[in-house]
Amino acid sequence: MRTFKSRNSDHISNLEPVAGNGLLSRRALLGRGIVVAGAMSTGAGTSLTSAAAEPLKDDPWSLENGANTPPLQTPSRFEKHVVRILSNPNNEMRTSHGRTPHQHLNGTVTPNSLHFSINHSGLPDIDPNQHKLVIHGMVKQPLVFTLEMLSRYPLVTRMAFLECSGNSATMFSNEPVQASAQALHGLVSNAEWTGVPLSILLDEAGIDPAAKWLIAEGADSLALHRSVPVKKALDDALVAIYQNGERLMPGNGYPMRLLLPGYQGNMNVKFLRRIKVVDQPAMGFYEARTYSQILPDGKAYRFHFLQEIKSFITHPSFGHSMKGPGYYEISGVAYSGTGRIAKVMVSADGGRSWADAALQGPVHSQAFTRFRMPWRWDGQPVVLQSRAWDEAGNVQPLRAEFVAVRGQTKRPVASPFAFTNQHYNSLTSWGIDGNGSIKHVYA
Amino acid sequence: MRTFKSRNSDHISNLEPVAGNGLLSRRALLGRGIVVAGAMSTGAGTSLTSAAAEPLKDDPWSLENGANTPPLQTPSRFEKHVVRILSNPNNEMRTSHGRTPHQHLNGTVTPNSLHFSINHSGLPDIDPNQHKLVIHGMVKQPLVFTLEMLSRYPLVTRMAFLECSGNSATMFSNEPVQASAQALHGLVSNAEWTGVPLSILLDEAGIDPAAKWLIAEGADSLALHRSVPVKKALDDALVAIYQNGERLMPGNGYPMRLLLPGYQGNMNVKFLRRIKVVDQPAMGFYEARTYSQILPDGKAYRFHFLQEIKSFITHPSFGHSMKGPGYYEISGVAYSGTGRIAKVMVSADGGRSWADAALQGPVHSQAFTRFRMPWRWDGQPVVLQSRAWDEAGNVQPLRAEFVAVRGQTKRPVASPFAFTNQHYNSLTSWGIDGNGSIKHVYA
Repeated sequence: MRTFKSRNSDHISNLEPVAGNGLLSRRALLGRGIVVAGAMSTGAGTSLTSAAAEPLKDDPWSLENGANTPPLQTPSRFEKHVVRILSNPNNEMRTSHGRTPHQHLNGTVTPNSLHFSINHSGLPDIDPNQHKLVIHGMVKQPLVFTLEMLSRYPLVTRMAFLECSGNSATMFSNEPVQASAQALHGLVSNAEWTGVPLSILLDEAGIDPAAKWLIAEGADSLALHRSVPVKKALDDALVAIYQNGERLMPGNGYPMRLLLPGYQGNMNVKFLRRIKVVDQPAMGFYEARTYSQILPDGKAYRFHFLQEIKSFITHPSFGHSMKGPGYYEISGVAYSGTGRIAKVMVSADGGRSWADAALQGPVHSQAFTRFRMPWRWDGQPVVLQSRAWDEAGNVQPLRAEFVAVRGQTKRPVASPFAFTNQHYNSLTSWGIDGNGSIKHVYA
Repeated sequence: MRTFKSRNSDHISNLEPVAGNGLLSRRALLGRGIVVAGAMSTGAGTSLTSAAAEPLKDDPWSLENGANTPPLQTPSRFEKHVVRILSNPNNEMRTSHGRTPHQHLNGTVTPNSLHFSINHSGLPDIDPNQHKLVIHGMVKQPLVFTLEMLSRYPLVTRMAFLECSGNSATMFSNEPVQASAQALHGLVSNAEWTGVPLSILLDEAGIDPAAKWLIAEGADSLALHRSVPVKKALDDALVAIYQNGERLMPGNGYPMRLLLPGYQGNMNVKFLRRIKVVDQPAMGFYEARTYSQILPDGKAYRFHFLQEIKSFITHPSFGHSMKGPGYYEISGVAYSGTGRIAKVMVSADGGRSWADAALQGPVHSQAFTRFRMPWRWDGQPVVLQSRAWDEAGNVQPLRAEFVAVRGQTKRPVASPFAFTNQHYNSLTSWGIDGNGSIKHVYA
């Protein structure tokens, strides 16, 4: 790129900061010139034939007819690195995780191809014309639904995040594991879901007033099942039959799954084939063991369903490298199982000073909210953090607060994929050194 | 399915209709029991071992470990029919269209794999590390941007539909062409776009106050270029670098495209490599010829940029078949280049009576809005229509009104892919006969 030179950020160095280490007011940027671009080095460059237009010389792809238009579009071959990390690539008889590459995404929607999935007995190959959903138990009239039947009911469309409560479990380590946002936080994703309110189906079956729980069961060979409070089922649960506009993909529950906005991923039973209305929880494997995490005093939470408020910075983050001092946007995602995100603050000095980030609207309840913060990096070491608040007044706990209640390991965790505990929702800190390389740190 | 019998919709036949041929009030449905499901035919069915639970017998996929978890998820093999229709599957040296299968989608997001694309010289294989965007012409300082540089600017995320102004052109035919919502209307889609406001980049280059137009040019071998008013560029134009969270796919402009919310698709220049600031429009091929549609009086519109208000029903629609009398949801999409959708009305009697549909919120400006209408079909022939209004007071014209101004062909159009004219935005009518088969009709 010899025809243009890089310009340094002279203008924005004069802007008033809103917090330490170069956090800027979004308002202050207007009309000031952000100056990331390269300036052409010669003349006015108003003609294609001038030397200034050399960057416009044709690249090889501008000189020949391009590739065929496919029935289903796929990403460019230059995006091959944007894939899910797999925990069980050879499909051994154990759980398979696919993690979302947050450091490569922006906006709020997670494409279905990249939505996280966890399956304990592989992806069942379900014929949607044979699959049935049964509602039975403490109801007046047991009912059977096919996918075609469900498609005729009143549908609801909404954004919702889904998170495995084991997401970010690596951060229970007493020392920070060096890993990307994908490796640390890749078991949360966000999508537009369309489905039938479960309340309508339960109403039709005629639920017994004495009923307190549902047992939801999947058609996977594990017959994964979870107990769900009737209150949640009647409040906002959906039987989801579309994800981001199209049918669910097999890893996410094709052809239908339970969606319990804000509740731990495992309860959002995939391949849903049965809802049994009962008066007591099943105390199945996942609720009695896996998701009853142990506290420092040796006791365990029972029914810790809610995915609590959380945020993390995706840009810049581990795996990126800074291209020298100058203007950058700090951005990430925030979400809360309790409702809407009300505020996200960002720090560039490890939590000594904080500034309000801009929230990309509209802010949906129980869904990803993208936050953005203008920033001028002066090339010195910094520590970036984000911290979120929701409309119910919940705040993401500082690490010291969190560890005091929930504990941490005595030795460093070796793998980013170790599930030492559940429901980590404290801050994530990215340390940037003078060379622009980025580490996961605790601060 | 011998263990349960179908129940007919006894309850809802007693509901007060809100318009002719069975349109129902959404409010009236609550607590009334919609009754699409099959009832189990025996006993209380509270135990898995009872005969009532026979629908719960294990299907083959519930009896074996499932398939491998892939790095990129793909749809189930049972969804192979959900693909784009291609106009040029062998990539001959002409335009290639890929149309969105609206009749198979629900919600508002179009997945990137199914987003429509039109490319006039194939899909260029662009190396994002080599591609550059130049802003030059009537500016103080010509600038060059790489994808990496653009990623550092303040980004904006928003929903927006994109529509080829040739979408629905088949409906200029004087007789209705029998074709699906995909074939008729598949050149419109809706996505969450993330990009840099063009106003920021133009501000940095220092735009000459005398400038009136931009010429935007792509890096495809056609070097497709369009003239864009400076006013639009400063208002809400983006240089989009993410679509539905991930990088744009090649057919939609990888690695960067112009996004002009509400303006005809062709102006949203893909593979964007150049913006030249000028004082007069270029009068290029597409604006001087293709998109200057001829009116009945022989005159032509010049610069008919806006995609005007429109709606169509996707469920039920051509290609679906009704499963007998009973409850159904009528739903579809509405959108307007002018702003937010304010109202959608639905008719089941060919326009004699109308009722307000529910709009799925939040309603975004210049984006798909999903509308939904409860309906009890009595098995008699009906004609379904939708009609949309936007917040600026624009209303989708009735067909007679539209044809009076814009004309129609003298002979039936033979192919659903013929581009006889541009900017069709009148109503679409689906005629359902007593057997439940669905035709495209004019009403």
